[in-house]
Amino acid sequence: MSSHHIVRDDQEPALIIANGASCSEELLGQLLEWSPYVIVLDSAVERAIQLGIKIDVILGDFDREFDPYIYKNEQFPLEIIHTPNQDKTDLEKAFDFLIEKGHKAVNVVWATGKRADHTLVNLTTIVQYREQLKIVIFDDHSKIHLLPNQFTKWYTKNTILSLIPIGKVTGITTENLFYVLQNEELELGLRTGSSNHVSEDGIVQISHKEGHLLLIESLD
Amino acid sequence: MSSHHIVRDDQEPALIIANGASCSEELLGQLLEWSPYVIVLDSAVERAIQLGIKIDVILGDFDREFDPYIYKNEQFPLEIIHTPNQDKTDLEKAFDFLIEKGHKAVNVVWATGKRADHTLVNLTTIVQYREQLKIVIFDDHSKIHLLPNQFTKWYTKNTILSLIPIGKVTGITTENLFYVLQNEELELGLRTGSSNHVSEDGIVQISHKEGHLLLIESLD
Repeated sequence: MSSHHIVRDDQEPALIIANGASCSEELLGQLLEWSPYVIVLDSAVERAIQLGIKIDVILGDFDREFDPYIYKNEQFPLEIIHTPNQDKTDLEKAFDFLIEKGHKAVNVVWATGKRADHTLVNLTTIVQYREQLKIVIFDDHSKIHLLPNQFTKWYTKNTILSLIPIGKVTGITTENLFYVLQNEELELGLRTGSSNHVSEDGIVQISHKEGHLLLIESLD
Repeated sequence: MSSHHIVRDDQEPALIIANGASCSEELLGQLLEWSPYVIVLDSAVERAIQLGIKIDVILGDFDREFDPYIYKNEQFPLEIIHTPNQDKTDLEKAFDFLIEKGHKAVNVVWATGKRADHTLVNLTTIVQYREQLKIVIFDDHSKIHLLPNQFTKWYTKNTILSLIPIGKVTGITTENLFYVLQNEELELGLRTGSSNHVSEDGIVQISHKEGHLLLIESLD
């Protein structure tokens, strides 16, 4: 879907294709439109190649008799990064790799669905990278990212926005959401702000003091 | 898939069919085999009826012009529970309903997939019920439940077991897992014990001191 020899704007987010369920070709097409730098985790390579995607990097532990070198010619230029360390997930290793190369932003697809442990870890691991990399995870139903302590964005009325704390988050205050939060605390498993929605076309403001707060925007 | 007038053993777990992606008919068939008490959340009713499932309870806020009373005759006897309170999710309300009726255990399907906010909240909300209801969430890839402070079970070699802390969990010690934990701490987003596996056919022991620890068994 993306073509080979493109002069890239370094401001363009990279794209990681991760280890979960495939998304719609429409979503993938949108994310590939500006020919981002594409990293594919090893468990997704065959599916990605079948979709005609030009891959820049294959990354993984290659532990299931998977040989990435068979794609060297077809996908030239292709970088192959072997990451056998089992202390981190392949998605975390891909984030580390991008940070090392100086990238500032990345979109991620195929990070949800299939194994529940992967989904939970993939959605929450982004808190570790909050100072280093702007990460947005997309699937067919949701757009997910960490909120800065002060967040301001224009939304249309009734957009469904869920505030999901990773751990405990304090001092949450919202403006222009239907269920108002006023210096309140949320804690994963105990009290979350799921399925809130925008009251009126216009600016939404969400601020919080301590902790990691995910914003999940529903795309359905 | 289940039939009408069954004398139920009260020890049999109830079954909640929730608001996420449908699972395989094979998994659903296994969970329906002993004719459990079946609660379906409103957003799943039409899909459940198309599969020929006998429903005991429809529960929800019925907020999308959905009329559950049209199923009253076809699904007789059918209980309809209207839960307009927006402070809890429909899944939490179904747990509350079962506890009130004296149930001790429940299996849950269709609680993952589709919206990421629902998946995250459904998988983590079970920590609130740890003293009241034995909850097991199933999807096509995973079996998920909270661990008691001392857990012992026989597994075959190489079974993939992930330890996912909801918040912070301290004093975790394992026996017969490949990556050994020895009085260690895990914290969601920072350090989790995903994709561990059983070393040898035999008893696995997992103990922890404080916090809520999910066990996710991969079924793939």
